[in-house]
Amino acid sequence: MKLSELAKAVSGQVVGDGEVEIKGVSPIEEAKGGDLVFVLDKKFLASALRSKASALLVSSQVVVSGKPALLADDPRGAMAKTLPFFAPKQARPKGIHETAIVPSSCKIGKDVSIGAYVVLEENVSIGANTLIYPQVWIGANCQIGQRAILHSGCRVGVDGYGYVQEKGKHIKIPQIGNVIIGDDVEIYANVCVSRATLGSTIIGSGTKIDNLSHVAHNCKIGKDCAIVSLVGFAGSVTLGDHVFVAGQAGFNGHITIGENSVVMARTGVTKDVPANSLVSGFPAQDHRKEIEFQASLRRLAKKTR
Amino acid sequence: MKLSELAKAVSGQVVGDGEVEIKGVSPIEEAKGGDLVFVLDKKFLASALRSKASALLVSSQVVVSGKPALLADDPRGAMAKTLPFFAPKQARPKGIHETAIVPSSCKIGKDVSIGAYVVLEENVSIGANTLIYPQVWIGANCQIGQRAILHSGCRVGVDGYGYVQEKGKHIKIPQIGNVIIGDDVEIYANVCVSRATLGSTIIGSGTKIDNLSHVAHNCKIGKDCAIVSLVGFAGSVTLGDHVFVAGQAGFNGHITIGENSVVMARTGVTKDVPANSLVSGFPAQDHRKEIEFQASLRRLAKKTR
Amino acid sequence: MKLSELAKAVSGQVVGDGEVEIKGVSPIEEAKGGDLVFVLDKKFLASALRSKASALLVSSQVVVSGKPALLADDPRGAMAKTLPFFAPKQARPKGIHETAIVPSSCKIGKDVSIGAYVVLEENVSIGANTLIYPQVWIGANCQIGQRAILHSGCRVGVDGYGYVQEKGKHIKIPQIGNVIIGDDVEIYANVCVSRATLGSTIIGSGTKIDNLSHVAHNCKIGKDCAIVSLVGFAGSVTLGDHVFVAGQAGFNGHITIGENSVVMARTGVTKDVPANSLVSGFPAQDHRKEIEFQASLRRLAKKTR
Repeated sequence: MKLSELAKAVSGQVVGDGEVEIKGVSPIEEAKGGDLVFVLDKKFLASALRSKASALLVSSQVVVSGKPALLADDPRGAMAKTLPFFAPKQARPKGIHETAIVPSSCKIGKDVSIGAYVVLEENVSIGANTLIYPQVWIGANCQIGQRAILHSGCRVGVDGYGYVQEKGKHIKIPQIGNVIIGDDVEIYANVCVSRATLGSTIIGSGTKIDNLSHVAHNCKIGKDCAIVSLVGFAGSVTLGDHVFVAGQAGFNGHITIGENSVVMARTGVTKDVPANSLVSGFPAQDHRKEIEFQASLRRLAKKTR
Repeated sequence: MKLSELAKAVSGQVVGDGEVEIKGVSPIEEAKGGDLVFVLDKKFLASALRSKASALLVSSQVVVSGKPALLADDPRGAMAKTLPFFAPKQARPKGIHETAIVPSSCKIGKDVSIGAYVVLEENVSIGANTLIYPQVWIGANCQIGQRAILHSGCRVGVDGYGYVQEKGKHIKIPQIGNVIIGDDVEIYANVCVSRATLGSTIIGSGTKIDNLSHVAHNCKIGKDCAIVSLVGFAGSVTLGDHVFVAGQAGFNGHITIGENSVVMARTGVTKDVPANSLVSGFPAQDHRKEIEFQASLRRLAKKTR
Repeated sequence: MKLSELAKAVSGQVVGDGEVEIKGVSPIEEAKGGDLVFVLDKKFLASALRSKASALLVSSQVVVSGKPALLADDPRGAMAKTLPFFAPKQARPKGIHETAIVPSSCKIGKDVSIGAYVVLEENVSIGANTLIYPQVWIGANCQIGQRAILHSGCRVGVDGYGYVQEKGKHIKIPQIGNVIIGDDVEIYANVCVSRATLGSTIIGSGTKIDNLSHVAHNCKIGKDCAIVSLVGFAGSVTLGDHVFVAGQAGFNGHITIGENSVVMARTGVTKDVPANSLVSGFPAQDHRKEIEFQASLRRLAKKTR
């Protein structure tokens, strides 16, 4: 693929020789002849020019000379569009593997790939073009949104953790609700999403939840949220749309986080957060206040010595 | 099922028309005719009365008019007893699936259900009425308590993390102990319980451990404890009976937490905690002291501005 | 095995009767006749002598009388060498189980054990003497280091979490990199290691990562590191060799931790850490400074009451 063809595909502009052949992409430090490298930060420009790469993809704000370059207004976006051209093809075999167990009550769409030792229970619906890797288990009556991706080891629909106390014993409250996974949701490896006690735990369309996070029963997670790894939501938390939650944050049960809010890493959220907030600390508060608070403590501690 | 019949089953009393037919249960906001809804907090009473539900289950302390109601002294307990009547029946097929691998050295009780692609190793004992979902693996010589529930993806008996240092290398200490799971234990999804180096890691009867928690080698967890999600126990922690541990708490190795104690969310416990304590903070201390400490810091920080 | 023979095998010295027959090892509190017990701390010496054990393994610094003893300069190291003699033999069946799916493009070394319902994808290389437990899945083109141990439920090569924003939507950045696992690496249960966006996520030789930790895309973890449970690394963290990270610590993306550093439990590391550091707190700082800081706060808070 010529650099000029790639530029067209990702809506960028070429500086220098657009005829150069791009055979692959690589990190700057591993680049060889034929490679395109991505310069997402200006500080990497010099090493990119020094590398063996045949061309650079770089912000249109940057002046480049010495190698052919593909300029993009949004270089990260252009990278996202470039990578598929060079991704190794790992086509899954079409059809249902002979060892997969698919009860006749299941509805299976066109052009699916269902791998070895997959087990579906009764009345599962699998939409067209769905790809199910080997050894997956899908419980009775399950349906998930279009284009959702559930990674290896995630557990969706586990019983919620609910008990009543009786003479010092925990008596299990049957968990008869479900989980609703919207369209374009991505749930990463080993994430747990518990079913509702009654009603539904909801993961809104477009939301992405990274490895090892926990969403307890009856949470309502909004649309297009980004939830990073090792985050814990206690029961019945409501997250508005477009909320960003950084790693190892935690949430008390029965609270509401307003839309467009950002919860920083390791924040412990103990009560409602209004829309458009930026919070940190434990207990969570407005991030600027938390910064001031921490700075005051450090000043005070210094004086005392 | 008539409301009056249900009231009898859960030891409650009917106010209004006990003849009303209850066909299902639902969250208040989704209630339709024929549904019973649970009013666990008085603030939801008005919306419950406004809903399309045919009846309410509510605390006997609350005065209700407008809909038939089932009054209970312990409404959460009554809910726990009500739900099984309306839980979808998901009977597992009886017997051993033809693809399950069960060595002849295993002892299999009556009326078990062993699913597709299950693999048992040698000398495993499965008690009567046990239900094993598809794709489960059970290692050699395993036995767990009566009525214990091990959810999807939990890992019981992983090697403990133990090394000796030799010239900057970690030399593995063989982990030859085991894990003992008591009766009525519930271990949720993706929880890890490591085997003892020597002797046993113990999960006491009646203890419930929520998603993504970690119990290291040689821990002795007491009876009827409640351990919430993303909690981490380092090696050789001893937890007394009836301890409650909230989410994302962590425990240093080789410490003892006395019985009936409560460890609040995100607490970092660094040393022994006496029985009947309520602790929070990092390092953990008496919760009232921690609250005072945090309040003092906030007062001081305010003054300094 | 006689005590004197064991002493020879672990380079220790016998005090008392070296002819005593050692039939097993056990924790002190469970010891019976014929057992050897390990006294790794002097405070357990009295109970060890009181126990039914036939012999003790103890530091050569300790004076023992009353039972035969094996003295070792490094008793933990000697324990590590002793345990294999008494570990239950759990030989895996040799060969490829008839239900394992192994494409002809895979290279399978000598004397491997591949268990039931294992699925390998195309072009996987399995070295000689490798042991693969039942129900494992290995993706296309995978290779891991010599003597590496990957425990149950760990997920290596999950997509990195990477998106670009477009009109409030998260557009997935294809993750076309890989993961490189060095020799002698041990990855415990339910750990997640994400593949690089481009290039490689690296786990250096000799590094051990405990249960439920998360290593994000493009991290470069050094050699002989010890990473304990529930630790989270954001993307592109670089860890030098011989770093120790304690439980529930977390790391911002794109930072570097110098070699031989120690990161204490629950530390939140927000920026680069020089080599040979000992850090704690959130944000992480030199551990002595953090201790002073916390002590100052506690003094100040006391005064204010």
